[in-house]
Amino acid sequence: MAAVIIDGQEIANAILKGLAGEVANLKSRYGLVPGLVSVQVGEDLSSQSYARSEARAATEVGIKYSTKSLAEEASPEKLLKTIRDINANPQVHGIIVQLPLPYWLDRDKVLAAVTPQKDVDGLHPLNRGLLATKDGEPLFIPSTAQAVMFLLAKSGVQVDGARAVVVGRSNTVGLPVSHLLMRGNATVTICHSRTRDLGGVTRQADILVVAAGQPGLIRGDMVKPGAVVIDVGINQVPDRQSKIGYRLLGDVNFAEVKEVAGFLTPVPGGVGPVTVAMLLENTLLAAIRQGSAAGILPSDYQLRAN
Amino acid sequence: MAAVIIDGQEIANAILKGLAGEVANLKSRYGLVPGLVSVQVGEDLSSQSYARSEARAATEVGIKYSTKSLAEEASPEKLLKTIRDINANPQVHGIIVQLPLPYWLDRDKVLAAVTPQKDVDGLHPLNRGLLATKDGEPLFIPSTAQAVMFLLAKSGVQVDGARAVVVGRSNTVGLPVSHLLMRGNATVTICHSRTRDLGGVTRQADILVVAAGQPGLIRGDMVKPGAVVIDVGINQVPDRQSKIGYRLLGDVNFAEVKEVAGFLTPVPGGVGPVTVAMLLENTLLAAIRQGSAAGILPSDYQLRAN
Repeated sequence: MAAVIIDGQEIANAILKGLAGEVANLKSRYGLVPGLVSVQVGEDLSSQSYARSEARAATEVGIKYSTKSLAEEASPEKLLKTIRDINANPQVHGIIVQLPLPYWLDRDKVLAAVTPQKDVDGLHPLNRGLLATKDGEPLFIPSTAQAVMFLLAKSGVQVDGARAVVVGRSNTVGLPVSHLLMRGNATVTICHSRTRDLGGVTRQADILVVAAGQPGLIRGDMVKPGAVVIDVGINQVPDRQSKIGYRLLGDVNFAEVKEVAGFLTPVPGGVGPVTVAMLLENTLLAAIRQGSAAGILPSDYQLRAN
Repeated sequence: MAAVIIDGQEIANAILKGLAGEVANLKSRYGLVPGLVSVQVGEDLSSQSYARSEARAATEVGIKYSTKSLAEEASPEKLLKTIRDINANPQVHGIIVQLPLPYWLDRDKVLAAVTPQKDVDGLHPLNRGLLATKDGEPLFIPSTAQAVMFLLAKSGVQVDGARAVVVGRSNTVGLPVSHLLMRGNATVTICHSRTRDLGGVTRQADILVVAAGQPGLIRGDMVKPGAVVIDVGINQVPDRQSKIGYRLLGDVNFAEVKEVAGFLTPVPGGVGPVTVAMLLENTLLAAIRQGSAAGILPSDYQLRAN
């Protein structure tokens, strides 16, 4: 039986619509316009493409999105000063540092410069630390990990007690997803490039989340029949047939796995759009918290949950 | 074939001997006496017993150990002020907040009050966050987790590529051990009270670390023959035969598992003494860093590795 394909674009559209209503309300009733700044160092193509999706969705929702671009050779001091200036700007409620940074910059030091209250991508070491503990309360959670959990909830799978396998241990996806699954009482196994017999491990998964950055890594015979498979991979694979010269492939062999899994997210159109929606939701949350703290909003103003 | 029993006390003694030599050198050549303060709120018996072991070993090594006791009903403000005063005291290089704290205190807020440079137990959310990421560089790592890794190294097991199962997801043991095993390239599964078919999971482990707080939880038939089993549990079980009214039992059924495992740590005398040794090593490291920063030690002074 073929898997149910989870339509991430449709789910994202519904979230964005809700956010647009909230933003309109904040503007008309309180004059508060949520602001998000993307800090980009150098010209990494995939992060630029990602930033364009963010900008498009932000505009759709009514969030003021702007980009602060620094040359690849910008000094660490200049980058840190840029971030500090944005921290101090009351018109900006959220900051995203586009990753990867050029390798010679100290990523954790840069991420730690973002004020935790504006860290809408949840990558400040302090927010990561609070997420990585059983009952810590991070101010924000990395949006890709949030998107994965949102899609799991949409599939109706019970996380509590499930065997979950996460392939990939990145700071931005694999690890935060593992922590969220663990908080949801799944029994979580984290696999990576040094895992022996990957298929033997992934076949045990009721929930399989793949964020390895390897196109087509997960084949049909590596999936337990009926499992929920969330494909976080977005790989640009050269393709002469395509106008843009490449096509996007996930980490999952879609054709094979859709015959085995119970639920499956496509690439593109799966995790990606929901990630952007979560980032914007976090930005709205940040704006509401900062607006309440500044007395612009009533102190008990709440973001309506999606 | 019976397991090799890893003698934690003997391993700890060797570490302590090395530390004593270092401390003597710091004192005689630079007049620097490493100082460690234990902050205790209320009268939790097991943390008091743990603190006594710390005090004894610290004295043996030449580290100045003192205890700051607050009444159980001490206000959060008073506790935070106590910690800030210790932060500011240049004679003190390390601070341990004895856990558990009374439940009405906000543990993460208290741990976050310790200056990260003196956080020798590695429990500041920032240090936890840096540990919880693949390549973050925490200033200190929780000493129990360090002890587990040290004992694994002593057993000669190869962590890279191994299947590791951690039972228990506490902030102080289960999670940091998982992160360290992951950094060592093990494929790690974290089990807990909501895990279904625990034995089915633990039987897959080449390395089994148990920190569940349940005496005798791991039976012989839950262990893969030849596995390395590290028992972090220390449970006080009432025993009328004993002078002190109880005896200490681990989370592993020792009699059964020693017939199956390849290596096994006993309780008491396994992880416990090595944990104390690691805490003191961290204190020495803190003293050296702070001494170097203050110009008391040469800036390139290094702690000799054990």
